[in-house]
Amino acid sequence: MAIVVQKYGGSSVANAEKIRNIARRVSESYKKGNKVVVVVSAMGDTTDDLIELANKINPNPEPREMDLLLSTGEIVSSTLLAMALHAAGFRAVALSGPQAGISTDSSFSRARITGIEPRRIIKELDKGNIVIVAGFQGLTVENDIATLGRGGSDTTAVALAASLKAKICEIYTDVEGVYTADPRVVPEARKLDEIGYEEMLEMATSGARVMHHRSVELGQVYNMPILVASSMVDKPGTIIHGGENMEARNKVRGIAHDMDVAKITITGVPDRPGIAAAIFMPLAKAGISVDTIVQNASANNITDLTFTIIKNDVTKAMQIIKPVAKEINAKKCLSDSKLGKVSIIGTGMQNTPGYAAKMFQTLSTQSINIQLITTSEIRITCIIAEDKVKEAVKALHKAFELDKA
Amino acid sequence: MAIVVQKYGGSSVANAEKIRNIARRVSESYKKGNKVVVVVSAMGDTTDDLIELANKINPNPEPREMDLLLSTGEIVSSTLLAMALHAAGFRAVALSGPQAGISTDSSFSRARITGIEPRRIIKELDKGNIVIVAGFQGLTVENDIATLGRGGSDTTAVALAASLKAKICEIYTDVEGVYTADPRVVPEARKLDEIGYEEMLEMATSGARVMHHRSVELGQVYNMPILVASSMVDKPGTIIHGGENMEARNKVRGIAHDMDVAKITITGVPDRPGIAAAIFMPLAKAGISVDTIVQNASANNITDLTFTIIKNDVTKAMQIIKPVAKEINAKKCLSDSKLGKVSIIGTGMQNTPGYAAKMFQTLSTQSINIQLITTSEIRITCIIAEDKVKEAVKALHKAFELDKA
Repeated sequence: MAIVVQKYGGSSVANAEKIRNIARRVSESYKKGNKVVVVVSAMGDTTDDLIELANKINPNPEPREMDLLLSTGEIVSSTLLAMALHAAGFRAVALSGPQAGISTDSSFSRARITGIEPRRIIKELDKGNIVIVAGFQGLTVENDIATLGRGGSDTTAVALAASLKAKICEIYTDVEGVYTADPRVVPEARKLDEIGYEEMLEMATSGARVMHHRSVELGQVYNMPILVASSMVDKPGTIIHGGENMEARNKVRGIAHDMDVAKITITGVPDRPGIAAAIFMPLAKAGISVDTIVQNASANNITDLTFTIIKNDVTKAMQIIKPVAKEINAKKCLSDSKLGKVSIIGTGMQNTPGYAAKMFQTLSTQSINIQLITTSEIRITCIIAEDKVKEAVKALHKAFELDKA
Repeated sequence: MAIVVQKYGGSSVANAEKIRNIARRVSESYKKGNKVVVVVSAMGDTTDDLIELANKINPNPEPREMDLLLSTGEIVSSTLLAMALHAAGFRAVALSGPQAGISTDSSFSRARITGIEPRRIIKELDKGNIVIVAGFQGLTVENDIATLGRGGSDTTAVALAASLKAKICEIYTDVEGVYTADPRVVPEARKLDEIGYEEMLEMATSGARVMHHRSVELGQVYNMPILVASSMVDKPGTIIHGGENMEARNKVRGIAHDMDVAKITITGVPDRPGIAAAIFMPLAKAGISVDTIVQNASANNITDLTFTIIKNDVTKAMQIIKPVAKEINAKKCLSDSKLGKVSIIGTGMQNTPGYAAKMFQTLSTQSINIQLITTSEIRITCIIAEDKVKEAVKALHKAFELDKA
């Protein structure tokens, strides 16, 4: 019998009725003869509510206690789903992350899974149980509970699927799959039947909210096929996998966008070794993630340096950067928080010229000014004004004929 | 440095403000130089809310999943209290029952503590941490979470105090201590400075709600002094201990009462061996606790049998008893759900006549009819009409001069 791992997000288990509905979906897979392991997130807004409660008591809570607190959310939903399956006449057992054998490092609030010992899960599956695992959590070597941070339950699901040698990891969510662009922006956007790990990774890191890039990476490492589908309607969804897809060659596969982009520019930076480290080390220490870095060609050993961060980090980053700029005798620090980015993604772009030119041409036709450009082998990203992002996505979707099957 | 174990109930940690207040009280004991271990219950109505949520999904949930679900309530409050202590500048660490080393048997929903391995607690105390333990829960040998049932967090506290060889176990609650009678019924009731384990046990099993008898028993077995005091006001409370109290000899120490009494009478029961077993075995199997059993003197080998149970069990008990009565050729089954009981308690009553007579005389003066009488060495209990209970408590409190110090 094949093992199937399913994951349901917080909105899919937000109340008693939805949990009963998910129990029905889970039992269908079981009735087909699969051994079913289900990973659940916390119900609806539970995690946010717990964070709010904690912040009322301590605006800067210890990550160790915060993780122990937040881990209860997923335990609650796992037990309720097991109870719903019992009520429907199925055998089921709920396991916390530690009970499921999930070990993590001790980086509280953003722990990484260090190993899975699935003995208990296998024992319960062999007894005929559907196994419900509380996502987002594991046990450190010190016997403490750590949570996996953003995308945690997806990561739990893919890691469990890999360790159990499941035939597939099914991620059920509030969208019907991976689209050529965000359907809320581009009504003509098409759902993709399949997509490669690398393309999905670029989509995820470029702003597509479907899955966190961590779990896609994990899927890629273990070559675990991942289905992304709706938890509400019975539709096929999108399979993320590692196989070649002949048809996808020479094609842009999707347009991703992200509104959460801010830019900081330091002008008049003396162009000598060690300057970049002097600027970016203190940002890294403060936990500020820098996305794109662009340095202009130097004139008279003086250059301008620009980098992008998320909007929430601008104030903190400026506080850190201003004294540094003064120290290295730079001229000025400027910030712009009204930016966004748009990306075209596809393995078909690899080593094929013309995609960048077509992208810039399309944006130019719409009178959209490009502020920064970054590329990977299978992605081209342009930083543009926030209020032009949707227009850009629509125009690019049309220009690259993504509305056509 | 002496170890002190403190326990705070659900109403003491019902919201952020109350939790901050408890943190202050905990830190005061720490500042006095004690090593402090704190046991907490779930916040306010959390447990009831979780039960309600579970029942919406499954009216008859599996005890294993129910216990895993309910255990989250105490974990939440333990982490929040630790955060409040951090915010006030104290070192603290929250531990779940399993992390605290508490092992239980596998009787889900009413598990018993089988052992405590306090290594982690001692390690954290030695690091200078205040240790907050989630009450009411432990780990079975199968690595499952089990809850301790009614009075669970008190039991956790006393068991931890015993295993840590604490100097005292302090139970903070919403009353100021143990009273000579319920102060809501008898305004003149006095708080006792101290009371023996046995007297407290009789009080607890006779209806006094201050502490569950389980934790008092545990205190008695390990000779652990227990302080019962208010979590809101700074007043001395009552010490429950095992030492002799000379002054308490020849005295009734307290009046307990309980409104939750129902009576079932089976008339015309043939008086032969095996009849009692035939009646009470099926009740025990159905989980119905029988309190008092009275069998009238037999005339012509025919007798009447009366027993008391809690009101909620009457319908179920009658369903079980009626066919049994028929089988053994008894005459009739009658039930009365409008009863209560009143008890006088004191080690001073041991081997001393006159207390029973005075109790019956007092009730008779109030025209209160006694339906059943039961006694232990240090307690006399009368079953009377529910609507006469308060009156009886008041009259007995006065008759035995409990209002006088």
